[in-house]
Amino acid sequence: MTLTPDQQQEIEAARAERHQTLRATAPGIEAHLHVAHPVLDHGMVRVVDYMGDDAAIVQAARVSYGRGTKAVQNDEGLIRYLMRHWHSTPFEMCEVKFHVKLPVFVARQWIRHRTANVNEYSARYSILDREFYVPAPEQLAAQSTINNQGRGAALDGDEAQRVLEFLKGDASRAYDHYEAMLGDTAPDGSPQQGLARELARMNLPASIYTQWYWKTDLHNLFHFLRLRADPHAQYEIRVYAEAIARITADWVPLAYKAFADYRLGGASLSATGVAVLKRRLAGEAVTQENSGMSKGEWREFLEVWGE
Amino acid sequence: MTLTPDQQQEIEAARAERHQTLRATAPGIEAHLHVAHPVLDHGMVRVVDYMGDDAAIVQAARVSYGRGTKAVQNDEGLIRYLMRHWHSTPFEMCEVKFHVKLPVFVARQWIRHRTANVNEYSARYSILDREFYVPAPEQLAAQSTINNQGRGAALDGDEAQRVLEFLKGDASRAYDHYEAMLGDTAPDGSPQQGLARELARMNLPASIYTQWYWKTDLHNLFHFLRLRADPHAQYEIRVYAEAIARITADWVPLAYKAFADYRLGGASLSATGVAVLKRRLAGEAVTQENSGMSKGEWREFLEVWGE
Amino acid sequence: MTLTPDQQQEIEAARAERHQTLRATAPGIEAHLHVAHPVLDHGMVRVVDYMGDDAAIVQAARVSYGRGTKAVQNDEGLIRYLMRHWHSTPFEMCEVKFHVKLPVFVARQWIRHRTANVNEYSARYSILDREFYVPAPEQLAAQSTINNQGRGAALDGDEAQRVLEFLKGDASRAYDHYEAMLGDTAPDGSPQQGLARELARMNLPASIYTQWYWKTDLHNLFHFLRLRADPHAQYEIRVYAEAIARITADWVPLAYKAFADYRLGGASLSATGVAVLKRRLAGEAVTQENSGMSKGEWREFLEVWGE
Amino acid sequence: MTLTPDQQQEIEAARAERHQTLRATAPGIEAHLHVAHPVLDHGMVRVVDYMGDDAAIVQAARVSYGRGTKAVQNDEGLIRYLMRHWHSTPFEMCEVKFHVKLPVFVARQWIRHRTANVNEYSARYSILDREFYVPAPEQLAAQSTINNQGRGAALDGDEAQRVLEFLKGDASRAYDHYEAMLGDTAPDGSPQQGLARELARMNLPASIYTQWYWKTDLHNLFHFLRLRADPHAQYEIRVYAEAIARITADWVPLAYKAFADYRLGGASLSATGVAVLKRRLAGEAVTQENSGMSKGEWREFLEVWGE
Repeated sequence: MTLTPDQQQEIEAARAERHQTLRATAPGIEAHLHVAHPVLDHGMVRVVDYMGDDAAIVQAARVSYGRGTKAVQNDEGLIRYLMRHWHSTPFEMCEVKFHVKLPVFVARQWIRHRTANVNEYSARYSILDREFYVPAPEQLAAQSTINNQGRGAALDGDEAQRVLEFLKGDASRAYDHYEAMLGDTAPDGSPQQGLARELARMNLPASIYTQWYWKTDLHNLFHFLRLRADPHAQYEIRVYAEAIARITADWVPLAYKAFADYRLGGASLSATGVAVLKRRLAGEAVTQENSGMSKGEWREFLEVWGE
Repeated sequence: MTLTPDQQQEIEAARAERHQTLRATAPGIEAHLHVAHPVLDHGMVRVVDYMGDDAAIVQAARVSYGRGTKAVQNDEGLIRYLMRHWHSTPFEMCEVKFHVKLPVFVARQWIRHRTANVNEYSARYSILDREFYVPAPEQLAAQSTINNQGRGAALDGDEAQRVLEFLKGDASRAYDHYEAMLGDTAPDGSPQQGLARELARMNLPASIYTQWYWKTDLHNLFHFLRLRADPHAQYEIRVYAEAIARITADWVPLAYKAFADYRLGGASLSATGVAVLKRRLAGEAVTQENSGMSKGEWREFLEVWGE
Repeated sequence: MTLTPDQQQEIEAARAERHQTLRATAPGIEAHLHVAHPVLDHGMVRVVDYMGDDAAIVQAARVSYGRGTKAVQNDEGLIRYLMRHWHSTPFEMCEVKFHVKLPVFVARQWIRHRTANVNEYSARYSILDREFYVPAPEQLAAQSTINNQGRGAALDGDEAQRVLEFLKGDASRAYDHYEAMLGDTAPDGSPQQGLARELARMNLPASIYTQWYWKTDLHNLFHFLRLRADPHAQYEIRVYAEAIARITADWVPLAYKAFADYRLGGASLSATGVAVLKRRLAGEAVTQENSGMSKGEWREFLEVWGE
Repeated sequence: MTLTPDQQQEIEAARAERHQTLRATAPGIEAHLHVAHPVLDHGMVRVVDYMGDDAAIVQAARVSYGRGTKAVQNDEGLIRYLMRHWHSTPFEMCEVKFHVKLPVFVARQWIRHRTANVNEYSARYSILDREFYVPAPEQLAAQSTINNQGRGAALDGDEAQRVLEFLKGDASRAYDHYEAMLGDTAPDGSPQQGLARELARMNLPASIYTQWYWKTDLHNLFHFLRLRADPHAQYEIRVYAEAIARITADWVPLAYKAFADYRLGGASLSATGVAVLKRRLAGEAVTQENSGMSKGEWREFLEVWGE
């Protein structure tokens, strides 16, 4: 990630301003405010604003006049109870706003989470920068042979080399032509009108970086993290989710710990799965054939519970 | 509105705490934070938290690294442009959280605005207080004869007196019985089991006060205000909307001013209405009969544009 | 439940109309269309319209031109896969609309599910009917001593009798006064103005019946059923959820079966719970003290997994 | 637009199936069901399913047991009243589902309308077709000099020719390389692993076609049409909105007519605008300088109201 001197200066100016407030503050996220955390080769995530903290969850759950109990232990117990019993509304009382720079194909996955507020940089209005995602060699992976929407082993050297040349060459040429179409000078030096930006952008590949302001509440953020910080998520969105997860753990440590225990690290069992585990606990050696599960389900079951 | 000494003390404690933050602060709403603004006879609205200010709208619209222009004039022009052209997402970047105490029949109207986060005091879990809305005499109005869902003139003295006795007497008796059903002592002094709270509550009238935490973004708040601070809204919800409107005007003065100009004080015209105005501008005396409008539409048109 | 002859006739007229359509139809729900299924003493649920069937889920997941595979087995496997991996959008492609008659205190819980479309009978505009929910004797339960928001054993006869008298008497009197306030005649026979409906309604208890049109997609319907058809939900909303669950099972049998297996009948485990089960599977006798769980979590864990 | 013989056959099969239903049917949209309406050079819109009709709006607004009045005139009056007074929930009672084929850069604008259900063709799971949007010559427009996010006059011949060559050449080469990266054979004929689809897709430009199932309710559809069938919308999304608008006019003719009158053809005035029109009606010649409007607002005002 490279910030221009202007951008760097704006961030530093924001970090230098200190305001007094009567609102609750969360020290763990104050330390992150405005700072650009690098993600991928040119991307970043930075917290622009937030509302609430662990105590705000408790306060809303109790509809109380003040800041809830002072005993952290009680707060933690209540937060764990709320998480365990799928009470979502108290977690909605915290809100966070990020500025994210990300490749377009990642943005297209991300935007499917609809319960968020988004302002994206407009390529109708402005000209995009010449920045494209190019995977690191260890991320240049082959199509998975067992998972239709996953990747397998890294490509070997020659093939990786060919892929890199395609990706870099095509992106570079597409951007050259983007500029040529937008410009006011024809190749022969004579003046030209310049294509509308809203049309020229269609020549750019999905690897180009865009940026947006993304604002969501903590409940929906947890839902996003659960799906996108998951090992089955595509690597390129997962690294954003992981960066956000680290920030969230600093922001609302009690809520994040409950989330990590009940969601990220937990497991969902079907009625069939519950029955199989009970048979195992009773000493029976259950097989796929007599489990009531399909082969796919059984494979996923073994991934968690072992043979 | 009466706050208990405990509640008063909790509010004062919250007002006394001062924190340093790197976030943007909005001085106009800091002055309101935690303060209980009385509404109706026992209700209130108080700001519990907020995120963003006028500059945050501009910052998001531009997807900028810093705090946008320092020139307030430019910010105001952009905010007016966004409002005029129905750009909603930049306004979604500001968020506010209120603690509201309100009669149940008002809560039932309010909750129809779905794009908000709500935590309501639970009458399954807790016991409601003995507080009921009783209209002031000037609000004891007759059914409107021209508007099926509105009210007309104030009732005359005798009728108003009868109504007040019904409302007060029934609420008081219902609450006495609520307590009697919940209690552990029968009328003859012998012990009783006590009815479940989730059942006992069904005896209470819609005039009883409840309370909730209500959190929404500025775009949806404006939508709420547009519908509920409107003269056609029921008085009992309108006074809440008006209290919130005053707070909002202090919070985001530029955005509120644009909202007041383009939405609250503006007018929507149908294609038919545009045509009628153009004929009038051209000097024609248009009548309902040749306007293309129904009688109802014509009456509403004259309310704005005169004969 | 009592339908007026007019209502009965309207339902029969709707049942008698047969239309040809090029849309997919789901025979299992056609049999329910328009029929009023009684719930509680005066309530009901009836399907007014629907969109889609099991095949529509498959069709959307594949973004296909036609109706997907004809092999039901493939469809079922895909639907189970989607449910297991929390793919929500294909289930959103089915939609259903209900007409529901329900007590106000049930409506207040129900409306907390915000991702639905609702049109409720307006007590500002119209006069509510004299119909109140009165629990059957076996549902007149004491407050639970272990669950702050649940109910325990049925009240004994005398106490139940007192509760019934309170509920019936207060509701009846409140409705008498509602009518008296709305009417155009004073008790002495002289004319009166009549209180505005939007005010008079506040005298009515939460046990009164209201009605609404409620429309939602299948994903959000499943979420509603998961929370409200659960044994921990209040009985009075659970019976509505159960009636809707039966209709849904007839509508989309494959999707419902997957939902019943993975959600209704399944179990969620925290990371701690997974670890405890693995220790048990390895032969260890885990106790609450060395489980890493609180007492409350341990109790809930044992409810599913036994000692 | 070219459909494969398989796709054509699937559409014809769907058109050939006739089912009996007890649901309301809307003849105007039945005629569109499944038919692919061409949009742009390779795109299309087709109705896959729908729920409700004009009468369903009336039925929900009245929360009635049957199909509402038989008098179309009454229905139309009520629908116009609902539209005029911004009652949105009755319109939410109708739902429609489209299958759309569209360029990615159009999809990226479209998806900003969050209140809809979407299933998009997955380029992680499947291989995209070689189909790119190439503007017709009259749509190859220069950047607007007065509107930062609009287009001006068509490019002249030579420049247009250069742009077409860039767009076609880059898209074609990018797709060749996409196939080369996905394939199992290296350029020299030796075997290769083949890049993961989720990575290879990033080489494709925003002009490539994708497709999705898109389902929304009538209220949100009208909102989409209001913004996207507007002359200020980008041409490439406007033609989709216009195709959908024509279908909607056939589906719910009364609601569409009200929408066209009150929204599409109507005008919004600020308080300042109302004041200016009143001064004009009173005979005053208002100028920008004494209007209270900025130059931009005044120009937009004159576009509607003339000098």
